[in-house]
Order: sequence, then C-alpha cells, then structure tokens
Amino acid sequence: MIKIALAQLNYHIGNFEQNTAKIIENITKAKQQGADLVVFSELSVCGYPSGDFLEFSDYINKCEEALEHILPHCDTVAAIIGAPHRNYSGKGKPLFNAAFFIENQKVKHIYHKGLLPNYDIFDEYRYFEPATSFRITEFKGMRLAINICEDLWNLHDNPLYTGNPMEELAAQGAELIINIAASPFSWDHRGQRESMLTQNARKYGLPLFYVNQVGAQTEVIFDGGSMAINPKGEITGELKYFEEDFRIMTIDDVIKQKGRTPREGEDANRKIEVIYQALILGIKDYFGKIGFKQAILGLSGGIDSAVTMALAADALGAQNVLGVLMPSAYSSDHSVTDAQQLAENLGCPSYNIPIKSTTDIFEAQLKPWFEGLPFNVAEENIQARTRAVYLMALSNKFGQVLLNTSNKSEAAVGYGTLYGDMCGGLSVLGDVYKTDVFRLARYINRHQERIPVNSIAKPPSAELRPDQKDSDSLPEYDILDPILYNYIELRKSPREIYELGFNKELVDRVLKMVNFCEYKRYQTPPVLRVSPKAFGMGRKMPIVARYLG
Amino acid sequence: MIKIALAQLNYHIGNFEQNTAKIIENITKAKQQGADLVVFSELSVCGYPSGDFLEFSDYINKCEEALEHILPHCDTVAAIIGAPHRNYSGKGKPLFNAAFFIENQKVKHIYHKGLLPNYDIFDEYRYFEPATSFRITEFKGMRLAINICEDLWNLHDNPLYTGNPMEELAAQGAELIINIAASPFSWDHRGQRESMLTQNARKYGLPLFYVNQVGAQTEVIFDGGSMAINPKGEITGELKYFEEDFRIMTIDDVIKQKGRTPREGEDANRKIEVIYQALILGIKDYFGKIGFKQAILGLSGGIDSAVTMALAADALGAQNVLGVLMPSAYSSDHSVTDAQQLAENLGCPSYNIPIKSTTDIFEAQLKPWFEGLPFNVAEENIQARTRAVYLMALSNKFGQVLLNTSNKSEAAVGYGTLYGDMCGGLSVLGDVYKTDVFRLARYINRHQERIPVNSIAKPPSAELRPDQKDSDSLPEYDILDPILYNYIELRKSPREIYELGFNKELVDRVLKMVNFCEYKRYQTPPVLRVSPKAFGMGRKMPIVARYLG
Repeated sequence: MIKIALAQLNYHIGNFEQNTAKIIENITKAKQQGADLVVFSELSVCGYPSGDFLEFSDYINKCEEALEHILPHCDTVAAIIGAPHRNYSGKGKPLFNAAFFIENQKVKHIYHKGLLPNYDIFDEYRYFEPATSFRITEFKGMRLAINICEDLWNLHDNPLYTGNPMEELAAQGAELIINIAASPFSWDHRGQRESMLTQNARKYGLPLFYVNQVGAQTEVIFDGGSMAINPKGEITGELKYFEEDFRIMTIDDVIKQKGRTPREGEDANRKIEVIYQALILGIKDYFGKIGFKQAILGLSGGIDSAVTMALAADALGAQNVLGVLMPSAYSSDHSVTDAQQLAENLGCPSYNIPIKSTTDIFEAQLKPWFEGLPFNVAEENIQARTRAVYLMALSNKFGQVLLNTSNKSEAAVGYGTLYGDMCGGLSVLGDVYKTDVFRLARYINRHQERIPVNSIAKPPSAELRPDQKDSDSLPEYDILDPILYNYIELRKSPREIYELGFNKELVDRVLKMVNFCEYKRYQTPPVLRVSPKAFGMGRKMPIVARYLG
Repeated sequence: MIKIALAQLNYHIGNFEQNTAKIIENITKAKQQGADLVVFSELSVCGYPSGDFLEFSDYINKCEEALEHILPHCDTVAAIIGAPHRNYSGKGKPLFNAAFFIENQKVKHIYHKGLLPNYDIFDEYRYFEPATSFRITEFKGMRLAINICEDLWNLHDNPLYTGNPMEELAAQGAELIINIAASPFSWDHRGQRESMLTQNARKYGLPLFYVNQVGAQTEVIFDGGSMAINPKGEITGELKYFEEDFRIMTIDDVIKQKGRTPREGEDANRKIEVIYQALILGIKDYFGKIGFKQAILGLSGGIDSAVTMALAADALGAQNVLGVLMPSAYSSDHSVTDAQQLAENLGCPSYNIPIKSTTDIFEAQLKPWFEGLPFNVAEENIQARTRAVYLMALSNKFGQVLLNTSNKSEAAVGYGTLYGDMCGGLSVLGDVYKTDVFRLARYINRHQERIPVNSIAKPPSAELRPDQKDSDSLPEYDILDPILYNYIELRKSPREIYELGFNKELVDRVLKMVNFCEYKRYQTPPVLRVSPKAFGMGRKMPIVARYLG
C-alpha cells in the first residue's frame, strides 16, 4: 500500500529561498500524512522556465544548495524533485534536465530527460543535453519509471523525436510511471494532455502519476491539473486547476479504481471559461511575483479596456484597479458614460483627464512643419501617445503597473499605436482574438451586467478621428479572426486560406499587415499566453523579412 | 586546376525573388570567369536567420521552388547552395539545414548539418533535425567534404557537441573541405573564426574554402570575411568584410601558396574600428531591407545622440538624418549649442521644438493628483516621453525611422525612460558600453572634429532635473562597465565580481538593477549586435524572476 503524495506548487523563478521553503513544507506535510513518496514538478527548485539564468554557474550552484537543504528532510518519506544537473561527461551541453529521487536523506537515482522540447515557448536544447539511455529505479520493492514531461510525448505516427525513453523503461520491467512536468496552459491543451498521458498508461498497462507546475511565469501560465491514471487509461485522481494543490493516493487504489475517460477536445463554452481562469492567474502572479499590488489602465468606453478592467478587478481586487478616462475631441459621449458606468459597476476608482488641451499644444508646436498637410495617422497617434504619457506619469507617481488592453486581432495587424495604446507592463488580452473578447465580456456578465452592454453592443472604434470605426480600415472581426487564426495558429499558406472561401485580395492584405507589423509587436509588453501560438517568446519572426510582405 | 568561386552575398530574409536572382547572377558570373564550382553561404535561398517562417510549409515550398529555378543555370559550372531540406524519415524535426551540391543541372548530393548551434542568437534545434551520418561527394575526381558552419566548431577539450562530422568525412578520404556558413559578427569573433577554421585545415591536412553570409538581418550582423586556407592552416585568400564580394581561386594555388597566420585576438583599436563598420552596415541594411531612406533622432547635446547621428549620417547620407532638439526647462545652454554644432558639422538638417509649454500642460492637468507631492521620476519621465511624442509625430508624418540612442550601460541598468528615450525602430548603440561610445566618438573624430569635443568632454547627464548628472544615480562608467561586462558577457557570480576588487554593495546594487530592469529591455527596439552577448534575441531572461533581485 505505497502512498504517493502529489505536490502541485507555484514556484517563483530564481527565488530559491521561497521555493526551497515551499518544497520542505510539503515534504513535512507528506510525512505528517503518512506518505511514502512525495513528488514535485519539473525544475521545481528554480522554477520553470528559468531562461538564460541556467547559463550562470552561480544559479546552478544555488540549485545544488537548495537540494542540499532539502535532503535531510527526506528521512521518513522519499521525494522526487526536479532540478538541473551538471553534465560531467565533458561532452555536450553543460546541464541535464533532471529528476532527483531522494530516499533516506540521500540522492538514490538521477534521471535525465531525454526528449527536450524546442518549439513555441520551449528552448530546452539551449541549456540541456538530451539523455540517450534511461534507467528505472526501485522503491519499496517496486520498479519506478520516473521521467520528465516531454518524455511521454512521443506516441504519434510522425514523432518529433527519434527516441522514446518510456520504451526503454518499460523493457526494464517498470511497474509504475511517474512523470514530473512543467506543461503550460493553452485553451486546447487539457484534452491533448489527458489523451497523451492516458495513452501511455494504457500502452504500457501501468499506473501513472503526473505532477505539473501551477502558476504564471510572466507570459507562460501553468495550469496544474496533476493526476493519477489507472492502467486502463482512466483518470482516477485529479488535482485542481489554476491553484496549488496537494493530494495523497495509494498506488493500489489508483490501480483498482475505475476512473473517468479522458476529455475529447474542448467545447466552446469551456474555452472562454478556462481562458478567463488562466488570465486571472496570469494577472495575479505577474503582480504577486514582481511585488506590485495595483494596476492602472486607460478606459475608452470600448470592450477591450472594459474586459481588461474586469479581469484585473477580479484578480487584484476592484479597489486596486484605477481606470483613467482621457476623452479627446473625437471621443463620443458614450465613451465617457460607458467607461464611468464600468468603473462604477466594478467598484473601481476612476480619474478623468481630458486631453484636448495637451494635443492642441503638440499640434501647435508642430505647426511650422505640419501646416497645410492633411490630418493623418500622425495626429491620431498624438492622441494615443498623449494618453500613454498621462498613464505612465500616474504609474510612476503612485506605483501602479499599467495594463495593456490590446487584443490579439489588433496586435496581429498592427492596429494600435506604438508607445500609445500598445504600452503597458503586461498585455492581458494580447492572445485573445476580438471575437473571443466579446465572448469573454458575456462570460464576465453571466450573473449580472458588470461590463455595460453598450460597450459590448456598439461597433468597435479607436475614436482617433471623427466617426472612425475599426471597420473603416479592417475587415469585420468575424472575417478577420479566422484568417488570422489560419495563418498564425495553423501556419497555412495564402492559397490554403483563399481555398477556405476568403477573398484573395483581403487575405493578401491581412497577411501583409501581420508580417509588416512585426516591428511593432517586438516592442510590446509580454502577452499572457492562452492559445497554442501567442505573440511573444513562442513566435520568433524576423523584422526585416520580405515574405508575403 | 579546379577553380572555385566564392560568392559572398547579402541576402534578404524571405525575399525569394531577389535572393534567387542574386544567386543566378553569381552563377552566371562564375561561368563567365571559367569557374568549375561556385559556392554560396548557408541557407542562402531564404536568408539566415529565417526564424519561424521555417515552420510555414509554404515558406519551404518557396525554398524548393528557388532551387528549381537555379538548377538549369548550373550547366557548365557546379554549385553548392544552402537551403532547408525536408526530413522525409518520418522521425524527428521536419527539416534539415542542408547544402545542395548541384552538378550538370541536377542535385548530386545533399549534405545535412550535424552540429546545430542553439545558444545566444542561435536556435537551430527549433527547426532542424541534426544529421548523425555524413558523406563526402566527388567532383572532377576530387573528394569534397562539404559541411555547414558549426560542423567545424567542435575541436576544443570540452566540446559542446557529442559528435564531430569532419572526423567522419576525413575518414572517407576527403581531399578538400568546403564550409558554408552564416557566422555573425561580434567584435571578438574574427580571431576565433580564423583560429577554428585554420585548426581544421591543419588537423586534417586539407585545403579549406569558407563562404560566409554578409549583411545585417535586423539585429544580427554578418560580416562576410570568406576565405581559403592551405593545409598548413595559413590563410591564402580573403574576401572583404562587411560587403558583398566574389572571388575565384584554384585549389592548386590555395594548396601551394604561403599565406598569413591567423589573427590572435583583437587589439583595442581594431575593436572600435570593426564596431564602427558593423554599425554602419547594420543601419544601412535595416533601412534598405525595410525600404526606408530617412532617419530621425532626438539630439540632447550629449555623446550618445551625437555618435548615433554621425553613424546614421555615414550610413544613410547626412541629408537623410534629421536631428530634433527639444530643450526643456532643465536643458543647459550647451545642450542646444552642442547639438546645433553637431548637425552643422555633419551636414544634417535639424529642428528645434522647445517642450516646456507641453510639459507644463501635462503637469497642470495632473495637478489634482500630484499637488503637494515632491518632483520625482514621474515629472522627469514626462519630459522624455513628451520628446518621444514629438519624434514619433514627425516620423509618422514624414516617414523617417526613429533611431534609438541608448547605450548598453544605460540599457543594462534601466537608466532610461520606457516610451521616452527608449523608443525607436532600431537601437544603434544598445550593444556598446558607454566607455566604448566615448572611444567610438574619438574614432569618428579621427580626421576632423565632427562630434563637438564638448559633447565628448562634459560629464554625462540626462538633464531631466536641475544640475542632474548620471553619476548622481550611477557609479562612474569606468567602474560600471567592467561590472556589467563581467556579469552580462562573462556570466560571473556576484562573489567572483567582488573578488575582482569591486565594492560588494555596489556590485549587488548594479546586478539587482540589471535583473530588475528586464521588463524595460523587453520592450525596447532591436539592438545591433556587436558583442558576444547583446540584449535582445540572444539573451533570454525571465521578467518575474527573483535571482539577485
């Protein structure tokens, strides 16, 4: 009756003191509750992803010291802990991504990860040497196949890797699979993850314990969802999503119990719900981990700033979110009333700073050069940038973090002002297409009208010139978004997108905008990642390129 | 007497039409001049680095089409061309980084790169499967060891890779090494490259032909410097640095000729000279490849904007570089006169837009909230951001690209205003420490006083409050820069830096600033890379981390 504790924790990158304390606390808890083995997630001592800190020898020393501190606590309980391990072979990258199996206060077995993800947000080949041989280890007479995250992700017909560690571990008579992971959230990932893990349990006819990291690390959100799976591939134990959790299960129970079958894909309603939960965690952890409590944002009366404010209020508390109305000469009356109504509905403070006198001065000073030239994007952007100056001045004076309110559709086609509305410490909606922003707004209003319905119902407008509408420059969002999705997420060719029934000229224009605006996205804040392909660290595009440009 | 043409060209990423035309033009030239074989650089059909465009199947199709267009031209001359090659094995990453050997209008041999760099700016594991076996090919009775860039970079005691392709090729009786590369510039790289290539020639006792890419791809600058090396490891033929070049050599001559020995390191004077040349190419290609002709920048009278303007004038022509003076209430008289003198010396146009009336309006509008609070960074930043609004308004109206003038020391410690002086399309000096900016200024003035000596001599100041000096907030640059160099380039620990003789408290404060300001650097423009460790794509740091923070 071996009892295994799954410790699903939220680590802070490079915060060794806090991470070590958390791990020791959970070891103690596991002992108190009679567990035989407690399992922590991938690279738990330092947090995942640590980026180029892994190239600092001092950082690796700190990881080793953390393990030294943890060892003595593993007396009556064994532990599996993720940490980098130096490569002493004298060949290859200087580190392995390792799982340390600790028993009787000693490291009994070190497993090195074999399949190193190096796509999207992952770049493990940058730091780690992949292992090419794999060993099981014994614990209380049972043969454990300990492995790490991606090591179980090579089951398909056209595998991304040439090897398969689990084959080797199974051949050594494994009786139990334990996978420690740092598997990030995207709205469609939960189904894929359940499918992959349950397939492994079924294929090898073994019970599987899975421990994932939880918590956001800047843009990357880890959703937890650790679980136990029986040898039939049914999920018999589940930990929470989007929060820390701790649970003890006996191996016998996991083997014997009937569980649920894995999720097949995600339905549309759940998509919006999990995006909401992920964004809340993303905001909360960004602020918590940099040590800030308050947010500021510009309120236009439109839907993007309204949804951003509602999310921030839910994550940080309404009183900690300051909305600033900055009407210009081109702002409609409803832009002000809708924004005021929003702040009132949510219980957030708001300031009102009309910007006309400021933009007038800018234009007056520029008159010697601008006189006689038509009003164009230069004057439009002065408005957006003037607002940014006000927001940043308040942020600098009072210590709030500016939230960016751009959505993914705008960010994709560059419909936004660099150093204007593209400012902010964190982009909350930068991975949410406009059509999903509408769905999020309705989800936020599911119990009561928090976001004024007028902000949802009115046609989107930047209000930077008289009677401007987004649809003056862009196709309607229900046409634009699927074109973008096919190009950005699915990486389809222009021809493949025409063949879906979209107008050729429009597709060409949209893709050209996407590629041309790379220079703008390069300078925008980190984007909370909720899709399988977000702008930012997971999408690396050259700026001076000419493909479809 | 086999004649080999080395074609060192400047490619434009994703511009298949232009790259293909250039390759065909050089094939034609090689034929006209009686060459037997013409060699192009790594991934020449698409340009290097293509980033995630390599994940688009359509992009790979375009590479294949480019090769199809090129094939018929290789009738009386053979060619070696770099291009991605699909991995048809059904296992591993979908592409190989390949060299296509074309003879008699047919692809006769395809070599797959084995050692994939995945550090600093390189992330080849993201796209490519490494080859694990390597074959020579024959040409006119000679056994060629064709290989690609990093494949020759595994000679040291503690190798980064577990394999060594050249060992396998040598064992097959190779008689000639041809290496096609995309090896980027850094000020200290030329010596390393010559050393590595000549060691290979000597170790295997073979002549070596090396063709590198030239030209800047946004931040990454390729310096060319293709060469031929005799079996003793002497350099017998050299192509130009920082420009396109084409040269034909016979193998016999390369083998027989005595050449020069490889460079040992770089001396300090050469460092500044090559940085100057690299920055000129970087500016020229950024503008050329995005299709812009004119630059704009703010002139403070200080040394950073002066050096940036001089470099831009040399790269783009003085008449294409507009300087804007924007004195505030805190600007000294000399800030205006020095800036005017600079523009006059260089022959650049300049505008003068005093900003006091604008910052007054900002402060007046903020009075309800700021009243009674002390003047601080909020008011300082209003000035810097007001200047950015003016610069961007002019840029938007007249189509110039704003040049960022921040240096590496400032960028490192976050001594700059986000959305203020940290704006710009391209950071010219972002990889040049302040002490080297002074050296660059003197280099630019080597023949005559182009940068006013007063801008070089006066103590650096941001002039955002009365009598402000950089040294109020920062240590002197001749102390700050070596601390930064040891941490950023050498990745030393705090303790190792104390042991170099720097004050502990100061080191701790500086390193904390560096790590804390990651969020600012995340949103700054691409930085022309001239050192082995520039901010930007080659240095990936988490924002919410707490290491030394």
